[in-house]
Amino acid sequence: MRDPGDVSQLRSALKDSSVQAAEIVAVIGKTEGNGGVNDFTRAYFTQSLMLLLSQFLNEDRDTLVQRIPCVFSGGTEGVLSPHYMVFCRSLSDAAAQPEGAKPSLAIGTAFSPRVPAAHIGRRQHVESVKTAVQAAMADAQIEDPDDVHLVQVKVPCLTAARVAEEIAQGEDMAGSQPGQSMALARACGALGVALALGDIAPELMSEGAMLNDRSLFSTRASISAGVEVACNEVILLGNSPRWSGPLQIRHRPMQDALDIGAIYQVLDDLQIGGRPQVTASEHAKIAGVLVKGEPDRRGSIRGHRHTMLDDTDIDPQRHLRGALGGLVAGVFGDSRIFISGGAEHQGPDGGGLIAVIAHTPSDSTSPVNVRHVAGSSTRP
Amino acid sequence: MRDPGDVSQLRSALKDSSVQAAEIVAVIGKTEGNGGVNDFTRAYFTQSLMLLLSQFLNEDRDTLVQRIPCVFSGGTEGVLSPHYMVFCRSLSDAAAQPEGAKPSLAIGTAFSPRVPAAHIGRRQHVESVKTAVQAAMADAQIEDPDDVHLVQVKVPCLTAARVAEEIAQGEDMAGSQPGQSMALARACGALGVALALGDIAPELMSEGAMLNDRSLFSTRASISAGVEVACNEVILLGNSPRWSGPLQIRHRPMQDALDIGAIYQVLDDLQIGGRPQVTASEHAKIAGVLVKGEPDRRGSIRGHRHTMLDDTDIDPQRHLRGALGGLVAGVFGDSRIFISGGAEHQGPDGGGLIAVIAHTPSDSTSPVNVRHVAGSSTRP
Amino acid sequence: MRDPGDVSQLRSALKDSSVQAAEIVAVIGKTEGNGGVNDFTRAYFTQSLMLLLSQFLNEDRDTLVQRIPCVFSGGTEGVLSPHYMVFCRSLSDAAAQPEGAKPSLAIGTAFSPRVPAAHIGRRQHVESVKTAVQAAMADAQIEDPDDVHLVQVKVPCLTAARVAEEIAQGEDMAGSQPGQSMALARACGALGVALALGDIAPELMSEGAMLNDRSLFSTRASISAGVEVACNEVILLGNSPRWSGPLQIRHRPMQDALDIGAIYQVLDDLQIGGRPQVTASEHAKIAGVLVKGEPDRRGSIRGHRHTMLDDTDIDPQRHLRGALGGLVAGVFGDSRIFISGGAEHQGPDGGGLIAVIAHTPSDSTSPVNVRHVAGSSTRP
Amino acid sequence: MRDPGDVSQLRSALKDSSVQAAEIVAVIGKTEGNGGVNDFTRAYFTQSLMLLLSQFLNEDRDTLVQRIPCVFSGGTEGVLSPHYMVFCRSLSDAAAQPEGAKPSLAIGTAFSPRVPAAHIGRRQHVESVKTAVQAAMADAQIEDPDDVHLVQVKVPCLTAARVAEEIAQGEDMAGSQPGQSMALARACGALGVALALGDIAPELMSEGAMLNDRSLFSTRASISAGVEVACNEVILLGNSPRWSGPLQIRHRPMQDALDIGAIYQVLDDLQIGGRPQVTASEHAKIAGVLVKGEPDRRGSIRGHRHTMLDDTDIDPQRHLRGALGGLVAGVFGDSRIFISGGAEHQGPDGGGLIAVIAHTPSDSTSPVNVRHVAGSSTRP
Repeated sequence: MRDPGDVSQLRSALKDSSVQAAEIVAVIGKTEGNGGVNDFTRAYFTQSLMLLLSQFLNEDRDTLVQRIPCVFSGGTEGVLSPHYMVFCRSLSDAAAQPEGAKPSLAIGTAFSPRVPAAHIGRRQHVESVKTAVQAAMADAQIEDPDDVHLVQVKVPCLTAARVAEEIAQGEDMAGSQPGQSMALARACGALGVALALGDIAPELMSEGAMLNDRSLFSTRASISAGVEVACNEVILLGNSPRWSGPLQIRHRPMQDALDIGAIYQVLDDLQIGGRPQVTASEHAKIAGVLVKGEPDRRGSIRGHRHTMLDDTDIDPQRHLRGALGGLVAGVFGDSRIFISGGAEHQGPDGGGLIAVIAHTPSDSTSPVNVRHVAGSSTRP
Repeated sequence: MRDPGDVSQLRSALKDSSVQAAEIVAVIGKTEGNGGVNDFTRAYFTQSLMLLLSQFLNEDRDTLVQRIPCVFSGGTEGVLSPHYMVFCRSLSDAAAQPEGAKPSLAIGTAFSPRVPAAHIGRRQHVESVKTAVQAAMADAQIEDPDDVHLVQVKVPCLTAARVAEEIAQGEDMAGSQPGQSMALARACGALGVALALGDIAPELMSEGAMLNDRSLFSTRASISAGVEVACNEVILLGNSPRWSGPLQIRHRPMQDALDIGAIYQVLDDLQIGGRPQVTASEHAKIAGVLVKGEPDRRGSIRGHRHTMLDDTDIDPQRHLRGALGGLVAGVFGDSRIFISGGAEHQGPDGGGLIAVIAHTPSDSTSPVNVRHVAGSSTRP
Repeated sequence: MRDPGDVSQLRSALKDSSVQAAEIVAVIGKTEGNGGVNDFTRAYFTQSLMLLLSQFLNEDRDTLVQRIPCVFSGGTEGVLSPHYMVFCRSLSDAAAQPEGAKPSLAIGTAFSPRVPAAHIGRRQHVESVKTAVQAAMADAQIEDPDDVHLVQVKVPCLTAARVAEEIAQGEDMAGSQPGQSMALARACGALGVALALGDIAPELMSEGAMLNDRSLFSTRASISAGVEVACNEVILLGNSPRWSGPLQIRHRPMQDALDIGAIYQVLDDLQIGGRPQVTASEHAKIAGVLVKGEPDRRGSIRGHRHTMLDDTDIDPQRHLRGALGGLVAGVFGDSRIFISGGAEHQGPDGGGLIAVIAHTPSDSTSPVNVRHVAGSSTRP
Repeated sequence: MRDPGDVSQLRSALKDSSVQAAEIVAVIGKTEGNGGVNDFTRAYFTQSLMLLLSQFLNEDRDTLVQRIPCVFSGGTEGVLSPHYMVFCRSLSDAAAQPEGAKPSLAIGTAFSPRVPAAHIGRRQHVESVKTAVQAAMADAQIEDPDDVHLVQVKVPCLTAARVAEEIAQGEDMAGSQPGQSMALARACGALGVALALGDIAPELMSEGAMLNDRSLFSTRASISAGVEVACNEVILLGNSPRWSGPLQIRHRPMQDALDIGAIYQVLDDLQIGGRPQVTASEHAKIAGVLVKGEPDRRGSIRGHRHTMLDDTDIDPQRHLRGALGGLVAGVFGDSRIFISGGAEHQGPDGGGLIAVIAHTPSDSTSPVNVRHVAGSSTRP
């Protein structure tokens, strides 16, 4: 990805048929903006991508955008490299599934109805996300919430101008500043995931708990907020025996931004050595690394003061992505890490989570993930 | 360190005599500015520190500033925590040195004469640094350059206004922009160290090579540039059998910003396990971690594009410190890492170096480093 | 002012006795930081200034800091030039006051008791400011609030770490984020001034109105917030017949950031032409220009969208200071404008105010402002 | 313009035929990025605009982009409002031109061939711009260079990665850092315009003069540089008796960033009062305001230090646009000012220029500018 308008690698893959346009179900990526309200690299890349796909499919951009969820996180601070992962799945007869097959990577997606501006950051927003996550689980044919390893959600948030407009029209809005609107929107996304997966008890959920009670969290929720979407877009990843194919996914919570142990644990879960660094041969097994984290809101990490929250020059999330990205990239020996800040209710307070998609240790007979029905996950 | 004016921890240490003001020979630290030309946290902390020391010593601030080198690097991006290390040494009779003693941490300091503005970034600047490094080696009583593990130098650089003034007065200046002046000044510092330690052949050194021929470097040079100093200030650290005491120092080059292996290697050199993270008990052994690195000027790391150099919003060095700081802090489990960007000619192109001061594996009979003569290194 | 540690101009003035150290009662200035929570240029300049004054007066720095209010606003965006104004007053026998003298610039100062952290941004904070303003009026010997033209207040605010600490100790804090704490603190300052001067009815003041009901404001309040102060520091400026001397002050509200008319109006009030720009000869009459403004929180100015509030890269107040500073400096033909962002309740919503101190049209017999008692205002 | 992907206003104008797609010859606008190498709002808006036009014209985006020059300047610092001006022209029989008609706004455009990377910032780049400007003059049917009032040029520049690539392939590049490449590219554009218009003598032009000899400039050149273009795109504006229509253009040099007088002068030239601010009724006459300026490279303005060049947090051009934009917007009472930083060789050293397009004092019989042939200029 040379810039946020560059889709040449996917174009090549589509042209030589190594990727089938009709099999693409979702795209996740990092673009090189600032990751804030005024980051337009996400919308630019989405527009570029949809222009490309509309050339290969008989659908216009507007239809595609409402069918294929695209979650782009702005901000490639430090060593991070702009990149994107294209998720594909192919379908096959359920009878084709071999007996006693190991669970393979399963992918489900869903779009909620449009979220009214006044609902953003409110209970209704949480419910809207929850329902969409349940739909994505059904789409992935995952029944046990424990088989879900990552739910990537893009939620809408508002510009300052939009908030002012709504207030002028008599709406009672949650969060009057852009940063606050983004944080509340992410909190709704995380709590919606947590409720859908049973990570928190429904009775604990309240508007007052949002951004305040950090004991409420899901270690499988990764939420981005952007002004460019109007509804919740869900990409759900897990392992399922109803799917076959070469890939699987695992995840671990991260206790704080220094939790290097969690990174090695998820590599262990996937039977990849990676000590002290993923080797060149192991490297080929890795299909995607997704990380969530946040600047500890108490102002220190393991007892030592950090300065992320008081900085007027650099946004706290930009600080965090740079630091955590540097750590994860160092272990993987690869700077193509999807890392997203703003981990409110996504993992332990001050921490976050890491999820890795990798090839299964044993060779698979099929080159792509197939289900009852099926899927494959490819990284251009 | 609550802010760049806070010297309360050292004040306490001086009051309870755990640190003797007269034994302080150097201070190295990180302050929370932007690390650029307009970072005044370094000067503010220096002023605060000298005010404190002048209360405990019968010297005024101006004298102290010319006797005790203070190298502060601005920029605590990401998880990094503002902190400082106070280097002390006590002197004792050479006869007191036990036979066959292991080499211990040795500290030497030196100040060059004032560097004229027109010399900055030029061959004369390199020579000035080289001479000062040789003086610091003599002060540390180290004869073999191989026993030197880190030479921390603060070199002067110029504001845009100052450069314009000098040009108006007919001076031919190297580097017309502030960033360029800083980079050239650091290059001079690094090449001066490299020449003094024999890391590069004298005939290879030329003004044309500065910032261009990156095969010329020292893996033991760590250079900061600041508008607040007018001469080169040198703090030289190594191991010497003429010193005794509990501390020693080791260093390793870092090949790039993902070189996690180098961090574990220097821990191995010091016989500290630290896998995957320095444990609480091992942690007590670490007295200081000093790192140098830079954004790869070729625009990519291990084949993947980074965006540090093209960013108009965040300075490239701020990006780098955040990422590399996140990696090193993750291995040490501690965010008090002295990390400084701008590693021109300081380690391999695109990489840098790491140096660690730690307690020796075997217990020492003395609580502080003592030489022939002697020294101790303490971290408040 | 070469940098925030440079007090050489005042040192010269003290040495040649053009300024008497004992007559200094207040200092107002702009330093070149970012103007946010992590702007340490204000504290650094204060420390430098107090070090200088303690050399000329028989008082230590801690005493001076509690006697002479120093209000420094960080941020010299765009054309703005770092500078400071030193306010002096000399006392003389009331009998010396000529009959029927014109009102002259009167200066009063006051310090409130320390504001507890939990009071910041609350009603108690408003009351504390109000009381201090009344004390400053008495100190200036101004009885009619209409004779007051500017009340510059420095109020304390909190770092994120400090807020987290207080909450952990069970305190119920107003404003959990640094920016929010600063905004609430400024609101308290403005409302305290408004109450003291009778600009708003006491019954309209409530905590709920803070930052919300923008119809409540004073056009004579200029508030800065900083983590470096623990109490409210007040500098009150007005005109009084009990004072004599060459200077007077006038002010005008600014309706928005494009209100160039207000600037010319205040020049008219002072009988300075200034059309289209203050000429060289008129220029000598100007002793100080103080401006307050803010990014319109509704996201547009005169119907056209601005982008200050949604910018993740540059702080909204930095945007505003740059733009408004450019406008005012263009009219005055001088970039030494004290301009401060964050004008919550300080002037009309989306606007602010301008106050100018200038020599009176007719020559004065005395070179300095003298009261009953007396004062002079000098700009180095 | 709600965001850089919003072309809804032009879409409405095209739908209701108030603008004819076929008559559009150029677009100039401001988008809300950072204005630097990594500002993708320009490319995003261009993509969005071309998508719209390709729906109304029987041409694909790639053809349109090579036919209709689009000059977007990133950066709406301070009060500036994102906006764009669409330039249209209609053609009519030369015989239709009334006798003795007043000169009217004339518009010409041109594209140079692709500029090889190694030419950027070099003499060949200057020549390429010069030739394109001559072509645009011919297209506008302007023979006397004195009738030209603004030449807006978009020149290509390079990312750090691209420069490194070229160097690796053995190319000798001008300017190794992104900022430097942009500055050199702008200098080439300005000197190319200056040569084409006869503003400087050809023998004075040399590569050594670029960015150094600031006595060489054109007061009618306004240059933007961007990584998104590969050739020079020229939009030339002047007045010509061969054109008829309601609009005309005038320009004035600005001596520095405080030169408010130049703004009133250009209003005088257009017989618009505008004192102290353009009134609502006068406002309807203004069709476009275009400004160029730069932070004085000598570090001060009228003897007072500015801090734009030494700031590590905010790019100097962002500082400048905010300040100068604030000043111009204040005079016009409108924040839709096209202002662009980086004025190397575009106006006096430390200054720049202002050009204003406005309706002629006397009513025109035609609603649009028409030439021999013809043109109209419209601002949505």
